[in-house]
Amino acid sequence: MATILVINGPNINLLGTREPHIYGEKTMDEINFGLEEVARSRGVQIEFFQSNHEGHLVDCIQAARDRIDCIVINAGALTHYSIALHDALRAAELPVIEVHISNPYAREEFRHRSYISPIAVGGIFGFGPLSYRLAVEMAIQLVKS
Amino acid sequence: MATILVINGPNINLLGTREPHIYGEKTMDEINFGLEEVARSRGVQIEFFQSNHEGHLVDCIQAARDRIDCIVINAGALTHYSIALHDALRAAELPVIEVHISNPYAREEFRHRSYISPIAVGGIFGFGPLSYRLAVEMAIQLVKS
Amino acid sequence: MATILVINGPNINLLGTREPHIYGEKTMDEINFGLEEVARSRGVQIEFFQSNHEGHLVDCIQAARDRIDCIVINAGALTHYSIALHDALRAAELPVIEVHISNPYAREEFRHRSYISPIAVGGIFGFGPLSYRLAVEMAIQLVKS
Amino acid sequence: MATILVINGPNINLLGTREPHIYGEKTMDEINFGLEEVARSRGVQIEFFQSNHEGHLVDCIQAARDRIDCIVINAGALTHYSIALHDALRAAELPVIEVHISNPYAREEFRHRSYISPIAVGGIFGFGPLSYRLAVEMAIQLVKS
Amino acid sequence: MATILVINGPNINLLGTREPHIYGEKTMDEINFGLEEVARSRGVQIEFFQSNHEGHLVDCIQAARDRIDCIVINAGALTHYSIALHDALRAAELPVIEVHISNPYAREEFRHRSYISPIAVGGIFGFGPLSYRLAVEMAIQLVKS
Amino acid sequence: MATILVINGPNINLLGTREPHIYGEKTMDEINFGLEEVARSRGVQIEFFQSNHEGHLVDCIQAARDRIDCIVINAGALTHYSIALHDALRAAELPVIEVHISNPYAREEFRHRSYISPIAVGGIFGFGPLSYRLAVEMAIQLVKS
Amino acid sequence: MATILVINGPNINLLGTREPHIYGEKTMDEINFGLEEVARSRGVQIEFFQSNHEGHLVDCIQAARDRIDCIVINAGALTHYSIALHDALRAAELPVIEVHISNPYAREEFRHRSYISPIAVGGIFGFGPLSYRLAVEMAIQLVKS
Amino acid sequence: MATILVINGPNINLLGTREPHIYGEKTMDEINFGLEEVARSRGVQIEFFQSNHEGHLVDCIQAARDRIDCIVINAGALTHYSIALHDALRAAELPVIEVHISNPYAREEFRHRSYISPIAVGGIFGFGPLSYRLAVEMAIQLVKS
Amino acid sequence: MATILVINGPNINLLGTREPHIYGEKTMDEINFGLEEVARSRGVQIEFFQSNHEGHLVDCIQAARDRIDCIVINAGALTHYSIALHDALRAAELPVIEVHISNPYAREEFRHRSYISPIAVGGIFGFGPLSYRLAVEMAIQLVKS
Amino acid sequence: MATILVINGPNINLLGTREPHIYGEKTMDEINFGLEEVARSRGVQIEFFQSNHEGHLVDCIQAARDRIDCIVINAGALTHYSIALHDALRAAELPVIEVHISNPYAREEFRHRSYISPIAVGGIFGFGPLSYRLAVEMAIQLVKS
Amino acid sequence: MATILVINGPNINLLGTREPHIYGEKTMDEINFGLEEVARSRGVQIEFFQSNHEGHLVDCIQAARDRIDCIVINAGALTHYSIALHDALRAAELPVIEVHISNPYAREEFRHRSYISPIAVGGIFGFGPLSYRLAVEMAIQLVKS
Amino acid sequence: MATILVINGPNINLLGTREPHIYGEKTMDEINFGLEEVARSRGVQIEFFQSNHEGHLVDCIQAARDRIDCIVINAGALTHYSIALHDALRAAELPVIEVHISNPYAREEFRHRSYISPIAVGGIFGFGPLSYRLAVEMAIQLVKS
Repeated sequence: MATILVINGPNINLLGTREPHIYGEKTMDEINFGLEEVARSRGVQIEFFQSNHEGHLVDCIQAARDRIDCIVINAGALTHYSIALHDALRAAELPVIEVHISNPYAREEFRHRSYISPIAVGGIFGFGPLSYRLAVEMAIQLVKS
Repeated sequence: MATILVINGPNINLLGTREPHIYGEKTMDEINFGLEEVARSRGVQIEFFQSNHEGHLVDCIQAARDRIDCIVINAGALTHYSIALHDALRAAELPVIEVHISNPYAREEFRHRSYISPIAVGGIFGFGPLSYRLAVEMAIQLVKS
Repeated sequence: MATILVINGPNINLLGTREPHIYGEKTMDEINFGLEEVARSRGVQIEFFQSNHEGHLVDCIQAARDRIDCIVINAGALTHYSIALHDALRAAELPVIEVHISNPYAREEFRHRSYISPIAVGGIFGFGPLSYRLAVEMAIQLVKS
Repeated sequence: MATILVINGPNINLLGTREPHIYGEKTMDEINFGLEEVARSRGVQIEFFQSNHEGHLVDCIQAARDRIDCIVINAGALTHYSIALHDALRAAELPVIEVHISNPYAREEFRHRSYISPIAVGGIFGFGPLSYRLAVEMAIQLVKS
Repeated sequence: MATILVINGPNINLLGTREPHIYGEKTMDEINFGLEEVARSRGVQIEFFQSNHEGHLVDCIQAARDRIDCIVINAGALTHYSIALHDALRAAELPVIEVHISNPYAREEFRHRSYISPIAVGGIFGFGPLSYRLAVEMAIQLVKS
Repeated sequence: MATILVINGPNINLLGTREPHIYGEKTMDEINFGLEEVARSRGVQIEFFQSNHEGHLVDCIQAARDRIDCIVINAGALTHYSIALHDALRAAELPVIEVHISNPYAREEFRHRSYISPIAVGGIFGFGPLSYRLAVEMAIQLVKS
Repeated sequence: MATILVINGPNINLLGTREPHIYGEKTMDEINFGLEEVARSRGVQIEFFQSNHEGHLVDCIQAARDRIDCIVINAGALTHYSIALHDALRAAELPVIEVHISNPYAREEFRHRSYISPIAVGGIFGFGPLSYRLAVEMAIQLVKS
Repeated sequence: MATILVINGPNINLLGTREPHIYGEKTMDEINFGLEEVARSRGVQIEFFQSNHEGHLVDCIQAARDRIDCIVINAGALTHYSIALHDALRAAELPVIEVHISNPYAREEFRHRSYISPIAVGGIFGFGPLSYRLAVEMAIQLVKS
Repeated sequence: MATILVINGPNINLLGTREPHIYGEKTMDEINFGLEEVARSRGVQIEFFQSNHEGHLVDCIQAARDRIDCIVINAGALTHYSIALHDALRAAELPVIEVHISNPYAREEFRHRSYISPIAVGGIFGFGPLSYRLAVEMAIQLVKS
Repeated sequence: MATILVINGPNINLLGTREPHIYGEKTMDEINFGLEEVARSRGVQIEFFQSNHEGHLVDCIQAARDRIDCIVINAGALTHYSIALHDALRAAELPVIEVHISNPYAREEFRHRSYISPIAVGGIFGFGPLSYRLAVEMAIQLVKS
Repeated sequence: MATILVINGPNINLLGTREPHIYGEKTMDEINFGLEEVARSRGVQIEFFQSNHEGHLVDCIQAARDRIDCIVINAGALTHYSIALHDALRAAELPVIEVHISNPYAREEFRHRSYISPIAVGGIFGFGPLSYRLAVEMAIQLVKS
Repeated sequence: MATILVINGPNINLLGTREPHIYGEKTMDEINFGLEEVARSRGVQIEFFQSNHEGHLVDCIQAARDRIDCIVINAGALTHYSIALHDALRAAELPVIEVHISNPYAREEFRHRSYISPIAVGGIFGFGPLSYRLAVEMAIQLVKS
């Protein structure tokens, strides 16, 4: 059975509890719960990982290679400077889908560069928690094809 | 009944007939047909407009304001330099969803700047024709909420 | 009898109907009507042209050369990237007056560069519809001297 | 009775006596005299200040706050680097109109940046001594409305 | 019989009537007439298209694909910013030859970047109307080999 | 009772033992001891956290939100590139005071950009261990007002 | 008896009377009065100088050399472009402490460069009038050690 | 007996198992084993440390100071942005040798800047696993001289 | 009888023997032989010079002034940095035609700047050995007119 | 009798008393005295002006126009940002000779741009007080020819 | 028998006689002698070439192609701007090893760009004369495999 | 007896015969003759070297070290890109005086950077042949002190 791994980077664990006017009122667990339902109903396994530590994210991606079929990642602020994540994702040789809850291109200029995008299949940004939903649907399509 | 307008910019009309290894084999009409089915099944009206002319795109966006509830736009190459489209979309005061078939951030540097992103709710890139599907689903959610 | 041509670029036709807090409540037609009165009272002919299409604007400027004595232009967003307008205006060998309703230098950085300014006699920005009034008065002075 | 303050920066006092092919043949006093007539005929008071010293210009702007209703300023070369003038004008909380005799955008690149523009209502450039005339007319409109 | 398409962008239609000291005294029609003779004498068909509208140029290039064997293009000012032309030419999958009447590298810096060059076989600039002659000769060579 | 959290980033734990000519001879513990005395004498609680790990610093800031009233932070080298810290501090919605022992603006250019400054109330740099002292005094003022 | 010189640059004399929501409600004289008390209580002499004129500030710094032991300076807008102040301070061979009432790094980008910082011992920014208080306390420490 | 510490940054642990056409087929352990033999045969002790965590790398470098005589480091992607590593290495006051398996200067531009180089004695890049061999030989020379 | 000088810079002597897929299979001598035939048939004299030494190229251009009527130059890599060639060509006060075998604008960014273009009449690039043929034909036209 | 004006900008009055290892041990008065002797012996009048105030320097240059034949100027730090001095010197329509005691090109990068150079006949830098001597000798040559 | 060519660029011939604190005390001949011994003992032939002339270096590289198996090059200052060397080395289609005696990344910024690196297998910098030793050992490995 | 070496770079040998309106009418030999007289009358030996070859200039500078006391150099176009000359001059450990006949700062931007200035004692530009005269006088002063 195909498995999708949803990875969340630094500060994403605060979802729903901080600045809800920007990031929405759903917590990360609630979002994940919804994603799990979607995946289950489609016959796909799904796993979740969150860390504020670049190193743990790299460890997790390295471990994913032989067990996982597709990575959905919201790298948070690390999106904009972590070449280590870029390298880990490239080395994983798995399809990667980039997610952002808010629209980074409508924010500070230092959020306009992504080190995830160049190695991603595609990405989704700006739709709040729904960004994940779309990304997981795309991931399901990818692992089923 | 809510109405979504799907706008395609220059060269998007070539979809399916040119460089299918990059852009997929579906024609724009086939994609639109699929989007129409999705919309109809969800009780939402959908319209389509394509032009290679920045001016026609601006005209179309201006005319959309009072009749349309959400714009889904793949501005093609104009994404990267048309401030006129940026201004038209902003003046329309409608929710805008940005779509790209390929992943512009994995291509030439001059495709890394988007004048659509800053005024978009959000965007989807890199999933081929499916990018439209996701965008229209988001649009349906927006016009229904 | 001397003739002034007032050219308006993309989205200027929305004046008065969109974002009146920024651009004022007068429509383009009302502004033009006022300009016509000024011109008539000064014994000068005035014509108006608006288009959202760079190509039509270039066509119009080319046609102006032998019939027109002075061009007043608000090129809208095209101000910032249309080298084709720059070339057309230069080739017309007519005095050009640049107009902006708002103050582009107080807005996004991509509005700080003008391809019209280098070939203009002078310019007026930031006074709302009155910017046109001042520009036409300058144009009258120019065509009378 | 409303009062307008016309401020001229470094080297503007040379008007009419230096490089008349660029700046015209009218002296600053002659220009001011003409502006005074305009103002008087419209029932508005007008004052003039010129200095080659950034510090005196800042002093003058500070003193203007409670007595003056609108500032018309040609900051000369200081336009391009005097953040102190920028701050003084902003602190004055008065409407500011920027004037240039020549067209700075058709000259050296270091004249393309203005620290006055971002805090000005609007501006006029390139019409020689007439630039002041237009600016004062705008100022009269502002102080009367 | 092989067919060459000569495309001229904005303001090229003014050739011979404007600024003859820069662009020469031959009109575009006279140049085209000469090119037609060259082509006919070499047993190659030739067609011409000029527009001031980016959109029409894109339309024309799209239509060329199945009927044309080689494109000679002087995109005028659009050379420097039209990514839409770049994309249309690339999608056409035809050999492209870039032409400029004047030498853009000896003019303003904004004329130093070409979006046509990267997808062109080669280019010719600076020889006035003769630039076209050389380009058509190269095109004939290409379509005959 | 109000609580201040003093956070030190990578390599700050070396204070007093490395390059004392630059960073002074006091160890971090000695500095903290001094800060504790100041805080106690003013009736304010103080806590300390140091880590060389960006992730631990983010964890710590997230945990601070409901228990802490003011953060004093010397993020060390992370100051210059950790957008994750920037986001964590902003999400904490607490007053932040930036501290640097040395003067980063007198060192390499890559130390001139701070991702902490834009979300800080204010900052203190260059006074060696005394920088902390001043920062804590400011923090006490803030939590008492 | 050691003497500290507190120098304020352009527009700082407006403190308390302009934009109190940004700069606080204390006037410069009130701040100075408070600083005088601090200094006196610590047995240190203190002097004050404010000018909107870069030249007077340079004169003042030159005169300080043999009579003054430490300079506390808020150069206002001159901070960002006055190389003359930079040179004067360096030539004075006195310890310099940089002060800013607001946080320049949270404001326009042109306020992110300081020509004072590279020759300062250290600096304090963002704490309103208290920034001076901290700076003077540091100055007292410096002149006493 | 002198001791060399070989430090490997993020993703280097994947050597030999990922993208062998780029990085070679030897695993990190095999490389280390070879280096150990070299060191032993030369009468020098050698230790190894790898982590995907910037923080652990900083911890390790801090601990090295008093026990280690020379550091050989391949910081992987952290090379290009970790100022924390730069600072830790500088504070260690040990000779540092920079190693890269591939040639970063023949790859993406963001790999052309190294924060390790400025504080390294020297470096070796592009020779695959042999890069380590050369580096360790240099380290042996350094610790023996 | 008019004389044309064809100058080839560094590495052009390798034509035909290196990377024929890029530069074609004709040797420089074969190309020159063909150019000689063209010139002879048109009653124009032609000379050839190649060197890998910037200095010899400058010497040769200096010597050309009084004997030569037109220079055709492919400066190879020196095109992109040799200001000495630029100066020599300008001082020669002869018409200069720039040639490139390949299309530098489709290669590395450091090949996009030419120090030859600004002082050339015009140029031809990308047509392989035929680039020379076109250039010599243009040169013949120039020396005959 | 021809007259030369030697102008010195901010901090030049400190010559000989500050940082003699950089600027030499001669005071400005001693240098001027030597220059006066040179001038007198050559039958040329010489005057001196120094100010730390940009405004006074501009005033002085304006007053020079009808009485002075050549200006020798060391604008000190103002060299690098005072466009007002640039404008004043250009308006004076007198030959200008730029002087620097030290070599600005061997110092901080912000000293590499001069706003005096573009309007100077020529300049001399780096020879300490002798720079003035050479400049005055050049000025004498200029006013005598 | 395989042959290695060691090429040294401008000023490398001064090794050992100039700035020995930077470049070491060994002369180039002594270094070469040592390299010859290494090569001989490994059964590989080695040749040496040094020139201060870019042109001679290009000539030498061109001649190397059919006789040489590997190039070791320290291009000295030419490293940073000689595109001609870059092209010659690429055309030679031989493995290239880049050497630097000092660490260019710890020196002026203009030494941070290398035109050799992108076409080199790998490189070694900063180990003084030993840099050559390592490079030749790598070259021997390459020619033997 | 002290010896001065005057070095002239590419195209300086054309002095007096090319573009005399820019460079003056004196030939290089005439200038050198005049310099010789000056030197002889002051009891100093003088030598001259000119080459269009960077390599010969480097050779010449290397050979100067033990025989020459001061170098006067006009490196012509090489000034702006020859790091090899920069290195040779620095290695020579002789005082260097930079000369330019014209004013490079009033010409194209690529002439604003000098690789000679940072290692020169000082320089003289813009005085035509007299620039050399001043430079030699400074050189005489240097070798005599």
